[in-house]
Amino acid sequence: MTGRLIGVGTGPGDPELLTLNAARALAEANVLAYFAKRGNAGNARRTVNAYMRPDLLELPLLYPVTTEIDKGHIDYRTAIEDFYETSAEAVAQHLRDGLTVAVLSEGDPLFYGSYMHLHVRLAHRFPAEVIPGVTAMSGCWSQAGMPIVQGDDVLTVLPGTMAETELLRRLADTEAAVIMKVGRNLPKIRRVLAETGKLDRAIYVERGTMVDTRAMPLVEKTDDIAPYFSIVLVPGWEQRP
Amino acid sequence: MTGRLIGVGTGPGDPELLTLNAARALAEANVLAYFAKRGNAGNARRTVNAYMRPDLLELPLLYPVTTEIDKGHIDYRTAIEDFYETSAEAVAQHLRDGLTVAVLSEGDPLFYGSYMHLHVRLAHRFPAEVIPGVTAMSGCWSQAGMPIVQGDDVLTVLPGTMAETELLRRLADTEAAVIMKVGRNLPKIRRVLAETGKLDRAIYVERGTMVDTRAMPLVEKTDDIAPYFSIVLVPGWEQRP
Repeated sequence: MTGRLIGVGTGPGDPELLTLNAARALAEANVLAYFAKRGNAGNARRTVNAYMRPDLLELPLLYPVTTEIDKGHIDYRTAIEDFYETSAEAVAQHLRDGLTVAVLSEGDPLFYGSYMHLHVRLAHRFPAEVIPGVTAMSGCWSQAGMPIVQGDDVLTVLPGTMAETELLRRLADTEAAVIMKVGRNLPKIRRVLAETGKLDRAIYVERGTMVDTRAMPLVEKTDDIAPYFSIVLVPGWEQRP
Repeated sequence: MTGRLIGVGTGPGDPELLTLNAARALAEANVLAYFAKRGNAGNARRTVNAYMRPDLLELPLLYPVTTEIDKGHIDYRTAIEDFYETSAEAVAQHLRDGLTVAVLSEGDPLFYGSYMHLHVRLAHRFPAEVIPGVTAMSGCWSQAGMPIVQGDDVLTVLPGTMAETELLRRLADTEAAVIMKVGRNLPKIRRVLAETGKLDRAIYVERGTMVDTRAMPLVEKTDDIAPYFSIVLVPGWEQRP
């Protein structure tokens, strides 16, 4: 009998935003795996502190490279692919031993989450289940009390890393937008929002739903210092009844 | 002392996908409000059956008009606006009485949810909180075990009701897409997917995460019968490491 692989979405950060299913999976797991950087266990692991038990084995999967290396470079791709293969094998060993492995994922596992790299390598070999989670963006607009889309609005989710002309074109062509990975891209994001006439309704949120969260209209943010995982929200719904 | 307004996301349908926060809010609420059609209490209400108590007051808010009336027509807009005003007033009465009112919303309240019509009318007058939920689309791609976006993918959320040329243009211009409100639009959706070369990887899901859910590659669906709230998923992530 092999064990079970469970991708567990831990939600946007507030431990109360775990689903009942996720809480149950954590209570039943034998092994708790999560992607992390050396010296920083990460938000997903912090979110589930309350579920740690002495008999729960932790399996941190430590990224070998940082975001500073160019992702298009062959060295990066080779290193990261080796890392995913090795990580999948470490998880597979526990599954072969009959243990249930919960793999944590901030937000929702299959929405920009690293868990998917294990899923595609293991789900055809072992019983696997994905427990969806509340996304970071849902956490952000809920905390801000800001309706994001209604009716037939189009929503576009954009990486802030995108080239300025491309970001501008896409922002001009959507009712609502979520801009992820803000960080150092904030000045560029401000410019394209201003150019598309959307700056006045944009909301900036960092560490959404966490204890030290900050959120404000972007026009009220006086500096350009932003964590990498901060988010800018542009609501649609201009024709509200 | 007035009561509290809480917009509660009930997730995609599986009661286990409620958040801990949502479960707590339902356990503490005095009044349970929800939008519904006459004769059909709706998915959100069904999802929270386990939380009903004899002392919990139900407040169904029954839509006066159906989706068959043209939404651009002045009669529709007047009727629906009156309805939202009346509904907000019914909720406000309980809030003035000091009761905590939980308003259910399928999926996530501020993501295409009707709750937002109450929120914008009441949140400046009463203490209000929005509890985000797992969206229907997250439930669908998790159930299908299909990674939807990775890295710098662009995700576009599109209504299936959109004109064919417009749907075609937008599908051709995104890595990943979620097409909502499939229903009678399925033949049109098939055509635009075929034209953009994305038909082979599209997944069709109806009643995602519910007990009677059905999911399959769209090319394997032999008929064009689909519920209004079924979803078509087009995964990005073609450059997977």
